[in-house]
Amino acid sequence: RYGYFGRATPEVVRLMFCNVSGCLTEGRIFLTASGEDMVSVNTRDTMGIRMLQKEEVEVVLLTSSQDPVSRSLADKLAERTGCQVVQVGEEPLDDLKPMVEKRKLQWKDVAYMGNDKPDVNCLNLAGLSAVPGDAPVVAINAAKYTCHSVGGKGAMREFAEHILLQKQKAKSQMKQDRIDSCSH
Amino acid sequence: RYGYFGRATPEVVRLMFCNVSGCLTEGRIFLTASGEDMVSVNTRDTMGIRMLQKEEVEVVLLTSSQDPVSRSLADKLAERTGCQVVQVGEEPLDDLKPMVEKRKLQWKDVAYMGNDKPDVNCLNLAGLSAVPGDAPVVAINAAKYTCHSVGGKGAMREFAEHILLQKQKAKSQMKQDRIDSCSH
Amino acid sequence: RYGYFGRATPEVVRLMFCNVSGCLTEGRIFLTASGEDMVSVNTRDTMGIRMLQKEEVEVVLLTSSQDPVSRSLADKLAERTGCQVVQVGEEPLDDLKPMVEKRKLQWKDVAYMGNDKPDVNCLNLAGLSAVPGDAPVVAINAAKYTCHSVGGKGAMREFAEHILLQKQKAKSQMKQDRIDSCSH
Amino acid sequence: RYGYFGRATPEVVRLMFCNVSGCLTEGRIFLTASGEDMVSVNTRDTMGIRMLQKEEVEVVLLTSSQDPVSRSLADKLAERTGCQVVQVGEEPLDDLKPMVEKRKLQWKDVAYMGNDKPDVNCLNLAGLSAVPGDAPVVAINAAKYTCHSVGGKGAMREFAEHILLQKQKAKSQMKQDRIDSCSH
Repeated sequence: RYGYFGRATPEVVRLMFCNVSGCLTEGRIFLTASGEDMVSVNTRDTMGIRMLQKEEVEVVLLTSSQDPVSRSLADKLAERTGCQVVQVGEEPLDDLKPMVEKRKLQWKDVAYMGNDKPDVNCLNLAGLSAVPGDAPVVAINAAKYTCHSVGGKGAMREFAEHILLQKQKAKSQMKQDRIDSCSH
Repeated sequence: RYGYFGRATPEVVRLMFCNVSGCLTEGRIFLTASGEDMVSVNTRDTMGIRMLQKEEVEVVLLTSSQDPVSRSLADKLAERTGCQVVQVGEEPLDDLKPMVEKRKLQWKDVAYMGNDKPDVNCLNLAGLSAVPGDAPVVAINAAKYTCHSVGGKGAMREFAEHILLQKQKAKSQMKQDRIDSCSH
Repeated sequence: RYGYFGRATPEVVRLMFCNVSGCLTEGRIFLTASGEDMVSVNTRDTMGIRMLQKEEVEVVLLTSSQDPVSRSLADKLAERTGCQVVQVGEEPLDDLKPMVEKRKLQWKDVAYMGNDKPDVNCLNLAGLSAVPGDAPVVAINAAKYTCHSVGGKGAMREFAEHILLQKQKAKSQMKQDRIDSCSH
Repeated sequence: RYGYFGRATPEVVRLMFCNVSGCLTEGRIFLTASGEDMVSVNTRDTMGIRMLQKEEVEVVLLTSSQDPVSRSLADKLAERTGCQVVQVGEEPLDDLKPMVEKRKLQWKDVAYMGNDKPDVNCLNLAGLSAVPGDAPVVAINAAKYTCHSVGGKGAMREFAEHILLQKQKAKSQMKQDRIDSCSH
């Protein structure tokens, strides 16, 4: 459902948004009495982020004001993944629109990975969008791609490989278009 | 097995009790040498709690004196979920009865989620009751609804959606009853 | 394979040994840089321990010198379960024999739950013995009962219920024997 | 695909390399705000390491510069497993070649367990090589053996048993060869 639609300078996914909770992690937050929250990430998924970054896709991680992650934990995530970590509100679209516009991108150049109700609008709007295999039905219905892997266990990696494949296909298509237009 | 039975002012679930251990969490308690216990909760389940709260269902979390959770950890849970956290004894019914009466509710206006033997009486009594899919047989037999999801991985969320659906059905039924009684 | 064999005063399981690692826990040890090891136990399993204790079965937890648990962590486990925690060597039988004899019990009055090679002799010897469903073949072959549940997720509980059922059967049998012998 | 190929002094696996992340662990890294990273290992897998060490196979654990493990955490791992822990770069082969040569071994005397893209060359080169059952396709295709168990839950143990079986077979074969050559 994604493709190159004859734009002058197609961007073919330059920016990816990904929920931390439930996408990059299993959605579990470990609570201790002392207040030291903890999350876990999978090296397989962080490898997926790195694969995208190498192909010049900027990856931005999203945390929710509804399930806040402490500032210092967000900093740790940013450091380990090399990603900006942004906190969004009840409607992530409101927070992300300015970011997309600032980069002079359109939503069809954006990939979005979410896993619940608040992500529905972004999942609908993004050129490529995905949910982990264990997402609620409401999110699955809005996403263009449902991962076989679940959150925190390879879903991010699977979507990364899916994006890179689409990018490759789009590039081949562009080349083909140029050849076709030259031969006329 | 739930329904609107012609009461003057049906409440259709105003109060929900939910075990922390094994329902909201996987039932695992992490033990460290220093004595800092830890539990993990899933954002998908806390989202379920919030969905109920928005529909004016009060959610009360239960910990057991048999598997005590430290006071400061209970406070953390209360803060993150916006729920009161109550410690109950070997027979939770004894502790919860006064709470139900104080709110001028009947047990059929109450939803209960438990996962083991001590919960049997409450599961039998509550208007709506559920167990996670991985609960022991003794608890499954007493519950009115068995979740497909397991504890700490969406069971609370699944029951929340089930409750909201029943509330909606009961409301439609009430409207229909009023229409029917007007047309006579 | 267990039963009452006409002894004068049958004990029908008075003592149970259970490995901490892989039986009561998933076998995972969490390692942190600061040296604070952590394990996780399931309330469903600790409930199983309590069920046995109520029926006057003494439960002793075993840690291995090969996978040592820090003294303070062992103390935490002892406190939460009400069990003695004993460290055994490469052949647990050597450490447990004196404990069985001191209690004036025979091995057929003992239940044993293990999950790996070093447990083979004890699994063979004990009157009732079990392994979690995810144990290696070498341990499964030696055990009299293989749990459907895996370690740290209900295996201990399942075995506890199995033991209590066998105890009940043995008691009925004893009563029947007495009736039979009176009627002669 | 492994075997004794008539060398004068066959070594039949003297050295094993194993990724920490995703092979010995589930690949999950627990992040806390304070910066205290945590990983979990399974006693079943550490038992596998010990089985190899008893048969005089040296086991070396590998961490990646791409997913760094803190020095003190690496020290903890080394202490618990009795293994050297080595940090490798983007192409592990470059770091491991000198180690193999220093021990006067050839790559066919080496066993390698990896779980992702960077491991492909080593998986191809090693006499015995394996991936956990949940590895990405790119790694599965390069490995000689795919474990039924997943990373951090018995994959290392399964490969250890596989190696020991191959060693035994190779030894029997050598004996048979000597008998055959004597009888001529």
